[in-house]
Amino acid sequence: MDDKVSLAEKISLLEGVYQPGIVGYMNDYKLAVVRIKGEFVWHKHDDTDDFFLVLEGRLTIRLRDRDVVLEKGELFVVPRGVEHCPCADEDTHVLLIEPRGTLNTGDAGGELTVAEREI
Amino acid sequence: MDDKVSLAEKISLLEGVYQPGIVGYMNDYKLAVVRIKGEFVWHKHDDTDDFFLVLEGRLTIRLRDRDVVLEKGELFVVPRGVEHCPCADEDTHVLLIEPRGTLNTGDAGGELTVAEREI
Repeated sequence: MDDKVSLAEKISLLEGVYQPGIVGYMNDYKLAVVRIKGEFVWHKHDDTDDFFLVLEGRLTIRLRDRDVVLEKGELFVVPRGVEHCPCADEDTHVLLIEPRGTLNTGDAGGELTVAEREI
Repeated sequence: MDDKVSLAEKISLLEGVYQPGIVGYMNDYKLAVVRIKGEFVWHKHDDTDDFFLVLEGRLTIRLRDRDVVLEKGELFVVPRGVEHCPCADEDTHVLLIEPRGTLNTGDAGGELTVAEREI
């Protein structure tokens, strides 16, 4: 992982939605791409903010008091401890940045939880 | 800085090259956009990796042993302690992520050093 990364190329390696693939690291953070379609699960991360940048499509990050709708080229950082639920009507591609070891489902757990993996 | 960020909109607020504008934070990291044209200065950051994602244009990150050429949608993380010199032939737009307090010129200092500022 010491070479450059084409985000589109990495996205093409993802077989399903909500299965992030790690494409690199910065200090103790993981850089991951993920495809999102449909509704994820409400969750929060008590120990970290959560970075989302939309690469393709449109992402809605539902918060308890509002929706944040991100188009391509827009980013949003969910503050630590804030419940959120990502969802998308169409296949949407996202760059995620979180500390290594951060669970994709945060405090919610459940069947959508996946192990970290590099692609 | 608790709303979404359009990277293109933020880039349009930058008046010159090599003058990063902070658009958000994630934990103790700053998210900044910068316009690059011409050659920057050789420098390194002994305490942190350095994240570059090209939003528009083409960025060459010169390393002592090779050049890394990034097109739109490509990212590269310069490892801590590695000397590098960003440069671009055309006006190139980049998303930078580094710990707050990281100097843009690293150990080199000099006249290209700028203070952190939000846009």
